[in-house]
Amino acid sequence: MQFDTLDDIRAFCRDLPRGNARVADAATLRQQNLTKPPGSLGRLEELAIWLARWQGREVPRLGRVTIAVFAGNHGVAGRGVSAFPQAVTGQMVANFAAGGAAINQIAQSAGAELRVVPIELDRPTRDFTMASAMDADEFLAAIDIGYRTVPGDCDLLAVGEMGIANTTTAAMLCAALLGGGGARWAGRGTGVDEGGLLRKRAAIDAGLDFHRGMLGDPLGVAAALGGRELAAIAGTVLAARRQGIPVLLDGFVATAAVLPLARLEQGALDHCRAGHVSAESGHRELLRELALDPLLDLGMRLGEASGAAVAILLARAALACHAGMATFAEAGVSGAGD
Amino acid sequence: MQFDTLDDIRAFCRDLPRGNARVADAATLRQQNLTKPPGSLGRLEELAIWLARWQGREVPRLGRVTIAVFAGNHGVAGRGVSAFPQAVTGQMVANFAAGGAAINQIAQSAGAELRVVPIELDRPTRDFTMASAMDADEFLAAIDIGYRTVPGDCDLLAVGEMGIANTTTAAMLCAALLGGGGARWAGRGTGVDEGGLLRKRAAIDAGLDFHRGMLGDPLGVAAALGGRELAAIAGTVLAARRQGIPVLLDGFVATAAVLPLARLEQGALDHCRAGHVSAESGHRELLRELALDPLLDLGMRLGEASGAAVAILLARAALACHAGMATFAEAGVSGAGD
Repeated sequence: MQFDTLDDIRAFCRDLPRGNARVADAATLRQQNLTKPPGSLGRLEELAIWLARWQGREVPRLGRVTIAVFAGNHGVAGRGVSAFPQAVTGQMVANFAAGGAAINQIAQSAGAELRVVPIELDRPTRDFTMASAMDADEFLAAIDIGYRTVPGDCDLLAVGEMGIANTTTAAMLCAALLGGGGARWAGRGTGVDEGGLLRKRAAIDAGLDFHRGMLGDPLGVAAALGGRELAAIAGTVLAARRQGIPVLLDGFVATAAVLPLARLEQGALDHCRAGHVSAESGHRELLRELALDPLLDLGMRLGEASGAAVAILLARAALACHAGMATFAEAGVSGAGD
Repeated sequence: MQFDTLDDIRAFCRDLPRGNARVADAATLRQQNLTKPPGSLGRLEELAIWLARWQGREVPRLGRVTIAVFAGNHGVAGRGVSAFPQAVTGQMVANFAAGGAAINQIAQSAGAELRVVPIELDRPTRDFTMASAMDADEFLAAIDIGYRTVPGDCDLLAVGEMGIANTTTAAMLCAALLGGGGARWAGRGTGVDEGGLLRKRAAIDAGLDFHRGMLGDPLGVAAALGGRELAAIAGTVLAARRQGIPVLLDGFVATAAVLPLARLEQGALDHCRAGHVSAESGHRELLRELALDPLLDLGMRLGEASGAAVAILLARAALACHAGMATFAEAGVSGAGD
């Protein structure tokens, strides 16, 4: 195991690599000499410099791009918080394996490999309204699965999830760590009706009440109120940081999964970008809290890393310009004011 | 020539194909049966249905995707409205031919062919503050060049431009057809300073004054206050409509280029989507006037079809899902409420 105790994670987070500022400066200078008005490629320039900083390469590469999708089941599903039955988690994992889901198609479009990791689907977390969802060992095991899923030679990682009822879990983490209760964070998820929305809010408020003594401890919250696939996402994000791999986060659940890391250590998500902002109501607000500016805003709310996977396409376009464009001098193009 | 007179264009616009509603309905139904909550792919679903409607194919194709970039020079450049000298238009056309520009790299990322069409660069339009930029014959010739640039077997077209001073021309068309004067529409373009911005505004206001008798005639405005590359873009958009080819518009200049068509005939741009919203200040407002909701908002302001070309990647992801995903029945996945 990468981490034997929660304290091991805390120590790891106090000593995170900070990215290569010298390489980022060189990449910035490179952008300024390419045949375009400075800044005119907008976020494509920022993406190229971000890849350079975290890979430590002035011209980064996107040879191996990995999409990691973790799946888990949730005790709170028993409270009628989802439009779909819990069996759909496993059915969708089978659909991923058969190549029939949205993420299979987008991964292929983006030239990325897809790793799907179901985690103990037959053993849902406990219902957080009346128990700890996971004990420390269960939580550490899920973190470890995520940590070990990241290939060492990967150039860019996109992370996402599948798990019936997990927008309730994600909203629970937001409410526990950012305040505001179920009314602020519960949304429609896969399309729950008004009654389901009220049950989501009530479950979150019950979770806040049951666990009120420990809401100041981000990792404790992630274990007691979270989910296995969310913990695994946090594990991948830590592994990526250690290995110099930039990360594209997917939607509300994937972002909520790394919120505990951000609360634990300032800058813990500096190597991450929000691939998109989801239509799930809490996501925009969560991104604002984390100062993450999403790359895409396409009204997507599917999960399974689909939004992050679309953002891989932007990273590829950004790198193509960064690596392939001529400079003003090479092309014989006059600069501003010449 | 496709059009011998301005009246030929007017007649053409009164008789535009309306897209295949039956095919669009079939594509919508297909989306509803795929293994995802209905609507959860957001604008990727909308894009797939839009491609289906205009191609007339329930499963559209993106085999041949063409990016058309038209270049022109502008008499109004003599008024000090750009940060770059006019020679840059031709220099950038050479850079396109050599493969060194941003659009070359993005076109390759997007699997699209690039057609660059310089139009009489050594014969700039006349300065619209004191003359008609083009007479009717010059305008019709530029429209015709655009019309003939569209390959008959093209599945998706992205259109853009290159032309020093043409954000002034674009702002001129907006001011003439939508009101508000130079203060509303002039922006920083490639990065003009405060003095240049004031000169842009003054040129636009002078153009409004000089041509005040004919502002009610969209095609007259496009000729007298426009540019050759803008006219060519309008020509491609008409050809695409006739041939069943959906169009992705690039930024402020490309959108302003088709504004006269929208003023001429309601629905004339129904086969177009805004690939992105540019950082150029007038673009967001122009898109709002045209009820075009941009696909991307990446702070780009380069022109040369770069934003539309990035949006091709979204169309490819949308089509991949539409064509490749399993249905609930095929995958054995339970639906909502099962």
